[in-house]
Amino acid sequence: MKPIAITQGDSAGIGPEIVAKAFRDAPEVLQGCFVVGDLATLRRAAQCLLRPGQPELPVALLQTPGEALQMPPRCLPVLQLPSLPGPQPWGQVSAAAGRAAADCVLWAARAALRGEVAALVTAPLHKEALAAAGIPYPGHTELLQAEAAAHLAACRTLGVDSENGPQRGQFLPDSPPHSGAMGQEDGKKWTAAAHSQPTIPKSDRLLGVAPQELPVRMMLANEELRTVLVSIHVPLRAAIDAVTAANVLQTLQITHAALQRSLGRPARIAVAGLNPHAGEGGLFGREEIEAIAPAIAQARAQGIDAMGPFAPDTVFMRARHAPPAHVGEFDVVVAMYHDQGLIPVKYLGVEQGVNVTLGLPLVRTSPDHGTAFDIAGQGVANAASLIAAVRMARQLSG
Amino acid sequence: MKPIAITQGDSAGIGPEIVAKAFRDAPEVLQGCFVVGDLATLRRAAQCLLRPGQPELPVALLQTPGEALQMPPRCLPVLQLPSLPGPQPWGQVSAAAGRAAADCVLWAARAALRGEVAALVTAPLHKEALAAAGIPYPGHTELLQAEAAAHLAACRTLGVDSENGPQRGQFLPDSPPHSGAMGQEDGKKWTAAAHSQPTIPKSDRLLGVAPQELPVRMMLANEELRTVLVSIHVPLRAAIDAVTAANVLQTLQITHAALQRSLGRPARIAVAGLNPHAGEGGLFGREEIEAIAPAIAQARAQGIDAMGPFAPDTVFMRARHAPPAHVGEFDVVVAMYHDQGLIPVKYLGVEQGVNVTLGLPLVRTSPDHGTAFDIAGQGVANAASLIAAVRMARQLSG
Repeated sequence: MKPIAITQGDSAGIGPEIVAKAFRDAPEVLQGCFVVGDLATLRRAAQCLLRPGQPELPVALLQTPGEALQMPPRCLPVLQLPSLPGPQPWGQVSAAAGRAAADCVLWAARAALRGEVAALVTAPLHKEALAAAGIPYPGHTELLQAEAAAHLAACRTLGVDSENGPQRGQFLPDSPPHSGAMGQEDGKKWTAAAHSQPTIPKSDRLLGVAPQELPVRMMLANEELRTVLVSIHVPLRAAIDAVTAANVLQTLQITHAALQRSLGRPARIAVAGLNPHAGEGGLFGREEIEAIAPAIAQARAQGIDAMGPFAPDTVFMRARHAPPAHVGEFDVVVAMYHDQGLIPVKYLGVEQGVNVTLGLPLVRTSPDHGTAFDIAGQGVANAASLIAAVRMARQLSG
Repeated sequence: MKPIAITQGDSAGIGPEIVAKAFRDAPEVLQGCFVVGDLATLRRAAQCLLRPGQPELPVALLQTPGEALQMPPRCLPVLQLPSLPGPQPWGQVSAAAGRAAADCVLWAARAALRGEVAALVTAPLHKEALAAAGIPYPGHTELLQAEAAAHLAACRTLGVDSENGPQRGQFLPDSPPHSGAMGQEDGKKWTAAAHSQPTIPKSDRLLGVAPQELPVRMMLANEELRTVLVSIHVPLRAAIDAVTAANVLQTLQITHAALQRSLGRPARIAVAGLNPHAGEGGLFGREEIEAIAPAIAQARAQGIDAMGPFAPDTVFMRARHAPPAHVGEFDVVVAMYHDQGLIPVKYLGVEQGVNVTLGLPLVRTSPDHGTAFDIAGQGVANAASLIAAVRMARQLSG
């Protein structure tokens, strides 16, 4: 078993405190996990959870990720990154918090790509803080996509098998194994100098692997339902334009590959239609006939267990898995646009929703909510989605 | 209290048997209801429910709707329409079954418009059978719209208050109060001759009231959630085109008026956005800014308690009313297209879903499923949605 890295998120938001709360309230789920971040930020988070008569959650300073596996329950194991800004004022956008959040994600991504950690679970960051810090990516997904592309490029240059190579300890010059001096195993303190080299992958480091070569898809999941989206944050008109045979097929391939690993068998994939009643034979739209059905046929020819297109208004109900009363017919539903998939996943409450980035050569999950600046620092934020994200990361990393 | 009329639906489908099952299994809900249809068809339906050791559901022949109020529980009260074709073979499209189903709907609609029944609950009919019978309307909604338009036109011609007039017993020559000889109160048998006049309203009978003057909207509801749709059976692209300020405002007006009657207060109406995150300030689409928000502002100026536009992926979760754990923030959600509203309503199962036609001068509900030709005649069809439709009809007719 390998440890799981949890990033602290934006220090002005609820990230650090829900991480602390998860270690306090769900020790069995969090066993073997550690936080990548800043000790003072995590101490402040543990303190904001304090209620009269309760003991303070002890914070443990790790020297290596592997130490997380030996931690006792109900403590907060932190791997301190060098040169990270400390805690920032609650509820305010700050470049320092954005920079710190991004550095943690990069470190965790590299550790996952090297095979040092089984997965990364990312606490929420703030897009404006990221921009204020000059990070050239709007969010986690793009950052991870760029980092994974850099990693694959380095592997290709070295002729290393990108799936297994890095775990065998090769040094990859363009993707330093320990983000500067990270991962020293002699117990020395991290040095600021070691961290002064750029952490954000630049395009010239990609060496011929464009992030587009790593197409990703968002999966939203809870205990009852998984859904993978063909497109996400675009106007609905643009989402319709994105329903092409190529995009649907790519979504099916990514979904199949990711779930095969966690299920140990081909996933039963239901594909939703785009139009009411899945177009009713062309009467209410032709995308099912011209794009979706051909993509399903191609996928099936590749051994993917894709079915449909099904009427959107009932396919999620059919996939819902709430035994014993309701056994789902499918393992996952491929949805044609953002709200088609997210409305049913969120309908029973957002607390348990987990966001998963599929398509990358690493496992990454995150809670399905933001930094909640309005309640940060009060210790009232709900850690359920983060805990569910840890559970899902474990499942997906097998 | 007035009786509620339940139409038998297409006799080749599950309509008659779910009606019989509802009277057998939910006598308290069905109290005061009666079936408009054909005695032999309903007898066959009662028989197909029979299981060894169970008593047969007795069928009672009514002479007037009012007798339904005195019926004992667990019997099947039938008001026989004259000249109705008898039971047709299970699971086959037939013009005779389509004609019979339409005649029952027309009779019930007229009875409701005259104020003789509180509401009509329609068992499923089959669109192809309707077409085979030469009925110039594709389904219930259009049939009812045309009939209501004819009724209003007749009221206008006579200078009668269409809300109250017909209940005072005026004879409306273009909308015969008893569909020919219907409603005779001397206990005589209906005569075929009396029924030979056309039952389908023709356009020349509309006398200046076009069906478009009676805009309708579909409401789907279950115990937890109500949603009203701006558009229904059109391609998603066309549904986006239909998101205009005028259409959204009209939907809000219809929703407000219909729920005001049943709630006894203005409904708290949440309006969903069209695009992800309700467009996020124009970033993911501008329909919220250009059409939906202006419609909400106009509606509010008219005293309608409309709020939004809200992010589609969480507004249904927020409206979900499942006390004590979850108290809904709104009474109803106005959805911008078919699947946006129907996915959450159906997510927890279609058994309890009820379809309501809003905007007509009568109360009409129906179960949220079709004729299910594949299982008709086996007595296995689930009557839960029909029972819920009766319950909803009672609520809406106050």
